[in-house]
Amino acid sequence: MHVAVPLYPRFTALDAVGPYTVLAFTPGWSVTFVAAVPGPVVDDNGKLSITATAAFEDVPRPDVILVPGGPGTVAAMGDEGLLSWIRAAHEHTRWTTSVCSGSFVLGAAGVLTGRRATSHWGWVDQLSAVGAQPVKERVVIDGRIVTAAGVSAGIDMALALLAEAADEETARTVQLAIEYDPQPPFGGADPHTAPGARREAALSLIS
Amino acid sequence: MHVAVPLYPRFTALDAVGPYTVLAFTPGWSVTFVAAVPGPVVDDNGKLSITATAAFEDVPRPDVILVPGGPGTVAAMGDEGLLSWIRAAHEHTRWTTSVCSGSFVLGAAGVLTGRRATSHWGWVDQLSAVGAQPVKERVVIDGRIVTAAGVSAGIDMALALLAEAADEETARTVQLAIEYDPQPPFGGADPHTAPGARREAALSLIS
Repeated sequence: MHVAVPLYPRFTALDAVGPYTVLAFTPGWSVTFVAAVPGPVVDDNGKLSITATAAFEDVPRPDVILVPGGPGTVAAMGDEGLLSWIRAAHEHTRWTTSVCSGSFVLGAAGVLTGRRATSHWGWVDQLSAVGAQPVKERVVIDGRIVTAAGVSAGIDMALALLAEAADEETARTVQLAIEYDPQPPFGGADPHTAPGARREAALSLIS
Repeated sequence: MHVAVPLYPRFTALDAVGPYTVLAFTPGWSVTFVAAVPGPVVDDNGKLSITATAAFEDVPRPDVILVPGGPGTVAAMGDEGLLSWIRAAHEHTRWTTSVCSGSFVLGAAGVLTGRRATSHWGWVDQLSAVGAQPVKERVVIDGRIVTAAGVSAGIDMALALLAEAADEETARTVQLAIEYDPQPPFGGADPHTAPGARREAALSLIS
């Protein structure tokens, strides 16, 4: 399975690297970071650059596309080079996927029309603006379209994808390899029960 | 707070990017990737390069150092440039931290002698070889030395560190921002109860 992860300026690093790490450790899977022009692409905090090793046109037919989110999503939604690559690749993918606000980029490319999809809790309701049916779940699988909630949800999404694309034992083996036995020190962070002041403070960090 | 993350060839990307994403989103914190020579450093899968924006000597006095692990650890344990930077920086850090087999690099630098520390489940027992007291917990805080278990444990470690260095509300706010409400599709991956065959298969993926 060949996975292409398109990078664009101001993507959120963990959106891309969480699923990358899961999928790149899987036997028989490989992951390529692609961009309009090969070279380093700077993330949302401006402190991390990941190198895209191929241009969009070099990878026209990946088996999987995985679109990260981030504050750069708004500009990415108007980037015709990126959108037309997604549109054309999606014609042939086995799975078309996103993390966080990456689902808005899929939506802008026109591939979410009428599909159940999710996104970061701060913006999931707005997915209807790009034609999707918003679903407040951590991972949403609608046929071959798989979307994840915010940032860290990409790890759960990649494991769910592996279980669908390969089998549960493969997913559990990779999960054990990366010791994904999460123990957040203060428990989970359910956005729907979090205090309003914390929700506002959290959104201000990532907008 | 200024965090320096040293990169070396064949580090594991999520070890670095999990905590990076937590800490870089925190108001008042900044993170710099450093290496022997500034430029892209290639990870363990050979498919991802993160750019180090500074040389070790450019960042002699970070408040925090955070050493990722990965298959490159063995070579890194003999890299005197890296080890002497860690040793000198540690004299002045507020926190000295690692993820996964990064604790072996701290150990090789001589800063774990007699300290409680952890590492990936596959190697934690061997930490005594570098003078540490191995502890099978996800995050171990011994004074200003904070170590995490394998790969994904760096996210939990960074949140615990934030709570110590700032306060719990700051940690919970960042956790909500990155929607870290983990829901592994098949539950956690406790290495101590995993079947032996899966443990062996998992180790073969990351060695």
